[in-house]
Amino acid sequence: MKKRIYADHAATTKLSDKALEAMMPFLQEAYQNPSTLYASARHVKRAIAEARAIIAESIGANPKEIIFTSGGTESDNWAIKGIAWRQLLKKQIVTTAFEHHAILNSCRLIQDVSGRVTYILPNNKGMIEEKSLLSALQQDTSLVSVMLVNNEIGTIQRIRELSEVAHNKGALFHTDAVQAVGHIPVNVETLGVDLLSASAHKFNGPKGIGFLYLRDGIELDPYINGGGQEGGQRSGTENVVGIVGMAAALKENVDMLEDNMKQLAELECLFINKLKTCEADYLINGGDNRISGNVSVSFKGLDGEAILHRMDLKGIEIATGSACDSRDTQISHVLTAIGLPEEYAKGTVRISLGAENTKEEVDVIVTQLIQIVESMNENR
Amino acid sequence: MKKRIYADHAATTKLSDKALEAMMPFLQEAYQNPSTLYASARHVKRAIAEARAIIAESIGANPKEIIFTSGGTESDNWAIKGIAWRQLLKKQIVTTAFEHHAILNSCRLIQDVSGRVTYILPNNKGMIEEKSLLSALQQDTSLVSVMLVNNEIGTIQRIRELSEVAHNKGALFHTDAVQAVGHIPVNVETLGVDLLSASAHKFNGPKGIGFLYLRDGIELDPYINGGGQEGGQRSGTENVVGIVGMAAALKENVDMLEDNMKQLAELECLFINKLKTCEADYLINGGDNRISGNVSVSFKGLDGEAILHRMDLKGIEIATGSACDSRDTQISHVLTAIGLPEEYAKGTVRISLGAENTKEEVDVIVTQLIQIVESMNENR
Repeated sequence: MKKRIYADHAATTKLSDKALEAMMPFLQEAYQNPSTLYASARHVKRAIAEARAIIAESIGANPKEIIFTSGGTESDNWAIKGIAWRQLLKKQIVTTAFEHHAILNSCRLIQDVSGRVTYILPNNKGMIEEKSLLSALQQDTSLVSVMLVNNEIGTIQRIRELSEVAHNKGALFHTDAVQAVGHIPVNVETLGVDLLSASAHKFNGPKGIGFLYLRDGIELDPYINGGGQEGGQRSGTENVVGIVGMAAALKENVDMLEDNMKQLAELECLFINKLKTCEADYLINGGDNRISGNVSVSFKGLDGEAILHRMDLKGIEIATGSACDSRDTQISHVLTAIGLPEEYAKGTVRISLGAENTKEEVDVIVTQLIQIVESMNENR
Repeated sequence: MKKRIYADHAATTKLSDKALEAMMPFLQEAYQNPSTLYASARHVKRAIAEARAIIAESIGANPKEIIFTSGGTESDNWAIKGIAWRQLLKKQIVTTAFEHHAILNSCRLIQDVSGRVTYILPNNKGMIEEKSLLSALQQDTSLVSVMLVNNEIGTIQRIRELSEVAHNKGALFHTDAVQAVGHIPVNVETLGVDLLSASAHKFNGPKGIGFLYLRDGIELDPYINGGGQEGGQRSGTENVVGIVGMAAALKENVDMLEDNMKQLAELECLFINKLKTCEADYLINGGDNRISGNVSVSFKGLDGEAILHRMDLKGIEIATGSACDSRDTQISHVLTAIGLPEEYAKGTVRISLGAENTKEEVDVIVTQLIQIVESMNENR
């Protein structure tokens, strides 16, 4: 069978060899419950502590500020609902209209009870402007949540500037950094965030594990109560294998960050330059401030899902919107938020490259994409 | 190094070879996000569906009644809080005083808001009597939650009888079956339960994955909102590796259930008979209706943690109370609930055997235990 080309790295990534290697002992002999008291469990406890230190260092945090969760979605739920409940729902929450559904659907619950959620629109380049945030803030805003990298169009927000605006008004700042951690430099001090969500499977770690960064001193009630693991902040027997794998994957990605970013910028450049030869009418979403390798392209009058399936038949794996939206045939809320006309929005595909993609693969991807959309246009 | 003897299976279990084997492809090439639309993801989607069917069959449920979670603790939190919020906190919840902390600490939150949680005490054999439940029920009881097997003393509750009492009063019935699934026959129809929590790492599956059984027709709001995975009931990219490993482990355990139960009953018999030669004053907690292989034994006037550490030095791994309580040097709430006098309660250890333990190992465990407690008594 012909080797398939994976260009859907924003949906999930392959587990790295180093991560798997780090995980194997904990899938075999080192199975002890880290909460137990005998000597053999100390090795497991130590592995968790080391993983926490690696992860903390990679984002400029202290180890005690890292709390392991079951993934980005749980982290997002906890950040939004935790702050909201803690503030007794009386205060306003501000977020954006193009967040991940883990944020939007958590906010919807809060909105149903408090009626105090404000959604800011990005501009048509997919950027949240400081003035938009400023005008949304109220005297009692408790939390602002803006994603660092959008999972569909890849725009990178100016989180530092936005968090400053929020802090000046006394609000906490959360960022969903699920698409950013391990891919661009992420430092909680530089960004000025109080809470940050991340998910291992987006940076070549395992699925089912993630973390919440919670700045020291910020009080947040646990979202999952029980035996008091994670310093009482997140109960449940630790997913040791996941934790160890996440740390190994993140360390590897962060060590390779500059090389990977350079490689992805080159690959994207190849893609976009060759796409210019395409005769179809298309738009690339999200302006210039985007994460390298993530291209959301909208072909006028075409059907994104039909393009995806034709690409799949050619052995190339891409997405329409985000993976989480793929059950849904509606136009993505992200494309709606940036004001993309429906005739383009329906014909959107997302190509998200990874550092292991080669120039040859990118050439195949873009060549096939052009052939497919041109042939679809001819047959209309 | 001398081979250590693991006798703490109630804390966690070693991942089975079959589970690891089933997981490996999904740790390597089959990494695709199951929500994606290309052909290679279908294999992943199918694996999840197959795992769900295996798990459903093993407890007499329909596949659509099984929702994957990050473990027993999340399942318990969801069941308790989900029902409570859905009932707008106005109605009573009944549980027992010796549940796992995942239940107790979830109930505490509800209690803080509604003041409507009632805790039933077990009798001194560790059994919840129907009359106790009946007298605790009120006209508006929404939910009764009683654990199937206690994680410290191993008592098996008469869930069928208890759920009948609850249903007769119009209440839903949840059971925390974390210590039961894969170890004794568990059938949701026979038990008559509406919700059931389970955790893979307790039955030789991986840590960080579990499930909630939710009887068809019962409405429960999602606890973790987001991209709409698990039929919209539990969002977050699926922990495919965990799901597949959980199903393989459960199938293996259920296939071997009778043999394992017989083996454990024999091992426990050996243990208890030899323990009778011990000159120390001791009590075995929990009466006769206990899960085989789980022995909670309390030595009068001794310190359980000191016994544990001396056993550890002999290469034998046991627990004091539950693993989740081991951070806590207080007397276990379970032993308090069954009315064990403090002079015994402080000297409690839990030996929890697994099917892979041999008769020779059990003989070593009990011989060393007797030597240790007798020598501790001599040195008092």
